[in-house]
Order: sequence, then C-alpha cells, then structure tokens
Amino acid sequence: MSGEDDLIARYFVPLASDPGAFGLIDDAAILQGSTDDLVVTTDAVVEGVHFLPDDPPDTIARKALRVNLSDLAAKGASPAGFVLTLALREANEGWLAPFAQALGEDAKHFGCPLLGGDTVSTPGPLMISITAFGRVPRGKMVPRGGARAGDVVVVTGTIGDATLGLSLLKRGSSQGSPATQQALIMRYRVPQPRTAVAQAVRDHASAAMDVSDGLAGDLAKLCKASGVSAEIKLEQVPISVGARLALGMKATTLEALISGGDDYEVLCTVPENRVTAFIEAAKAAGVEATAIGAIREGRDPPRFIAAGGRLVTPKRGSYSHF
Amino acid sequence: MSGEDDLIARYFVPLASDPGAFGLIDDAAILQGSTDDLVVTTDAVVEGVHFLPDDPPDTIARKALRVNLSDLAAKGASPAGFVLTLALREANEGWLAPFAQALGEDAKHFGCPLLGGDTVSTPGPLMISITAFGRVPRGKMVPRGGARAGDVVVVTGTIGDATLGLSLLKRGSSQGSPATQQALIMRYRVPQPRTAVAQAVRDHASAAMDVSDGLAGDLAKLCKASGVSAEIKLEQVPISVGARLALGMKATTLEALISGGDDYEVLCTVPENRVTAFIEAAKAAGVEATAIGAIREGRDPPRFIAAGGRLVTPKRGSYSHF
Repeated sequence: MSGEDDLIARYFVPLASDPGAFGLIDDAAILQGSTDDLVVTTDAVVEGVHFLPDDPPDTIARKALRVNLSDLAAKGASPAGFVLTLALREANEGWLAPFAQALGEDAKHFGCPLLGGDTVSTPGPLMISITAFGRVPRGKMVPRGGARAGDVVVVTGTIGDATLGLSLLKRGSSQGSPATQQALIMRYRVPQPRTAVAQAVRDHASAAMDVSDGLAGDLAKLCKASGVSAEIKLEQVPISVGARLALGMKATTLEALISGGDDYEVLCTVPENRVTAFIEAAKAAGVEATAIGAIREGRDPPRFIAAGGRLVTPKRGSYSHF
Repeated sequence: MSGEDDLIARYFVPLASDPGAFGLIDDAAILQGSTDDLVVTTDAVVEGVHFLPDDPPDTIARKALRVNLSDLAAKGASPAGFVLTLALREANEGWLAPFAQALGEDAKHFGCPLLGGDTVSTPGPLMISITAFGRVPRGKMVPRGGARAGDVVVVTGTIGDATLGLSLLKRGSSQGSPATQQALIMRYRVPQPRTAVAQAVRDHASAAMDVSDGLAGDLAKLCKASGVSAEIKLEQVPISVGARLALGMKATTLEALISGGDDYEVLCTVPENRVTAFIEAAKAAGVEATAIGAIREGRDPPRFIAAGGRLVTPKRGSYSHF
C-alpha cells in the first residue's frame, strides 16, 4: 500500500460511510438519481489567504466544509454530500488526525457525508477545495437574482464578528475579556452554517446568498443580480455583544463591520407579507433573523443609512482575490 | 467590479452556457434531477507535480479537465458538467486567455459544460481542481470491484507514451524524429479521455478504471478491489510506434512503460463471451481496444509475463504522492 493510499485508508475511509462513496476505493462516487435538483457549490481555502498557518487543523477542516454548507443553506438546499481535494506538503499525522476527525464530526453533524476526493502533494501552501452537494425540489433553488422592490432585506445571526476575530488574531488587543475575544476568534475560525434555516429560506425568500465577503459588498452583488437597489438601516444590522463592545471602545466602526468578511450568515430578501413567517420559522430552527432594510427600485448601489440619516459609504465593496 | 469578478466575467462566463450555471453569477449551480445516477469524480493538478511550470496554458487546461473526463469514461458515464477551482498567483491575461479558451473548447467538444467554480489567490504553485459529473442509468456505474476469474483484461489505446513524453520533456533526447518526440510529449500534456467508449464499457465491462498511475499499479488496485489476481501477457500490451522505437533503441523497457503514469486509457475486465462485442463497439467508436490477459482466482498481485515466459516485476507499484 502506498503512502497516499495508506493516508486515505487511515484518515478518510472512516468518514466515507455513505454507500455512494464505495469506501473511497473507486474512482468516482454516486449521488443517487432523484427528482430533486442537485445544488452544487465549490469553495477552496488556502493557507495564508483564507486561514492562518497556525490555525488549529480541526478548525481549518470545519471552516473548509462549513463555507460550502453555508452556500447550500443560502440556496435553500439540504446537504447531500461532498468531495474533498487536499493539497498537502507532507503527510503529517499530527495535523491529519485532528483535521480528519473534525471533518468527520461536522460531516455527521450536518448530514453531509464525504463521498470522494483527491489527495495531492504540493510544494506550496496547504489548500483544501471542497465541492458540496445539496438537494432542493425541482426548480426551487433560491437564486441571487429574485429580489423585487418592496421585499424586506433579512440577515441571520450577527454581522462583523469574524472580521473582528481576524483582527484580534493578526494584531491582538488588550480590550475586552479573554472570553469575548475568544468568541470573536471562533466566529472567524469556525463559522456556523445556517443549515437550520434552509427550509425557511426555500419557503419564503425571493433571493438569497451567504455573506462571505462582507455584508455591504454581498448585498451589492445580490442587488445587481436582481436589477434592484436597497436601503439598509445600519442601526438595525444585528451586532453581537462583543462587536458592540468594540464599537463602544472605538476599536471598530459599523462601516468596518459591514465591510469585513467571513460572516457566513444568510442574507435574503423576503416579500413583506412573509417576513413574520420567515423570522418565526428561523426562530423555531434556533436562528435569529433580523430585518435590516428594504429593496428599492433602481440600479444604484445599496444605501446604508446611519442613525440620524447620515449616508455611510463602506470602505471597500467586497473582498477580491485579485 | 472587483478584479476577481472581472476575471470571471471576462474568461469564464463565456464558457458557462448551461442554464444550470446561472451565468456564474449565483453561489451555486444546478444539475437537474433525473432518474439517472450522478457519477462524481474529482482530480486536481498542481504545477511542478502534475504539470511542468513551462507547459503551455492551453494544454494545462485540457489536461485538468481530461483527467476527470477519463474517470467518467472508465465508469461508463456520459459527461454532464464540471466545476473548477483555480488557485492563481496573479491574474495574468497572457496565461488566462489561452487557458480559458482551451477549457471552453474541450468542454464543448466533450459535452461537459462549466457549471461553476471558485477563483482564489495563492502565494504558491498554480493549482487546478476540477470536480466533474456524469450520468449513468441507476445502478449501472462500472465499479473497480467487479472483476471475476476468467474475465478478459482489456485496455484501450496504447500504454507508456505519456511517461516517455515526460522523460523527453525532463531530460531531452536525440533519438527519434521531432514528430515522434512531439507525439509522445502531447500524450503527456494532453491525454485523450475515452469518452467515446463509455457506453461500451457500461454495456460489457464487469470492472473498470482509468490508467493514471501506471498500468501495473492500477491493475493491482482493480484486482485488490475485486478480490482477484490477473495474468498479463506483456507482448500483448499495446505499444505505439514511438514507444516501439524507444524500446528498439534500448531507451526504455516494457517494465518502465507499464509502470509509468498519465496514460488515461480505460483498463477494464470483460466476461469472455462479450470481449468481441466490446472490442467491436470500441472500434465503432473510433477507439482500439486490446485484450492483454485474464483475471485469475487468488489474491496474489497481477503477474506480468514476457515473451518466453519470463516473469516481470514492475519497478514500482503505482505513483504515490506521499
């Protein structure tokens, strides 16, 4: 048995319990035919770009899978499985064992089994590329482009914690308690995909996406895809206790919180007569959802309005790799 | 529009003509529901590992897609689409334009449209990870594990050209005409996926895989998955004119040809009473298929027998990344 086969057998075969994975001994996996549409999403994370070289391997594994689960949830899809491409410099057991264990735990927790993959060597940074699959009833994937004037803009959870967590990791801070700081760092390292609200999104939202590159920039993308504009009340954007503390200490600004990335919350638009039903369905699934503004006619970029009516222009639109 | 969005719009949106791709403006793609099983395969190529830094970008694109199409063909599946993850150091138009154009040409030629992807920056080597989808009637994917004693071992095309091509690129040679050398190099750089024989494989083969890590090692994997052994007649292994020339000049050996990788031919086992039908169906699809031996009972590694009955032991089993 080669090193590569041995690595796969030791760390990843235990995760491949789905019959369509063939115990990872075949060249391909099977997703059984169904009248449901299959939603496909792919997201890669690169060491030094999407995660930090000294991030713990278990959090890297969880983040790599969860950013994909976040996309599926925002499309209204239920997880069906994933394939993994792992580019490694070396087969390091101390790294691989916790990576694979955490990946397996998340796969089980979110009902998204490992179906197959490819393990390759690289002289460069570690890279994890995941393609994840979800199912929706035919024609029911929630698109980016379905927002209509008058729809209410809703976001789950809280915004800006992950970008504060990343700042703490990069620059440190003496502000806030260790527990508060750790909570913000964990929002950066281990996002919480909103799988629980996928059904509510499918039932009620006219358009949806996940917030990965910053609320401001991602809302602009949703509006552009829908051919509409939006007006957001900044004071309604949900902010965690930790972020409120940072704002109070002038360690950050609302502009920075809505421009940072890695939130992995669901941003969606909901027809006005369904907003209460959506927020209640989300709550029943254990997720807070908050109305933050409304979709408007026109093609202007979304407007962010602070308390007192001041117009806020986010510093940068959205994270770009190039 | 950010650099990343601009890059996607300029180079990849033109490839995303399938309605399930949503013009690459959404977070996910759709593969429409069907009673067919969906076959999923994923293969990544890394600069300096799977291709050489100065390989032309058009050949890199073709190889990245074709190694996945090769897997689908060996499973008996018809291509349905693919998603692309591209890790780039920089957005270099001189590289991206020919890369995207060749990828689009191959996607069209093989009926495998681009459905989505992710473009990320990396400080390290270029990496292209593709997950490809194919369809087979429910339960009809051809597995690795279906070979039975008495089945005939069949391989498409010729074996060993790509490893000779790689040697030429790495070490050069004064032997053989430039045209012959170029043909071997092209076998390394641009494999020919055997999409044309997918139907014949599905109709006739008991087990199949593609030859990517060397005939000897890959046959050993197929035998292991099937719980059988095999006996291969080396003189029956199909060899190209160029490889025959290299053998005649003692520039290589049969052992080296069956141990090298990157052939991307279909290796399959076919019940004896179907061999003629399989070879004829392949021929009708424009692909030569050759019987090279037979499956035997037992768990011993496959035996490779040279003319005169000498037992040949391949130098290494199969390529391993670790």
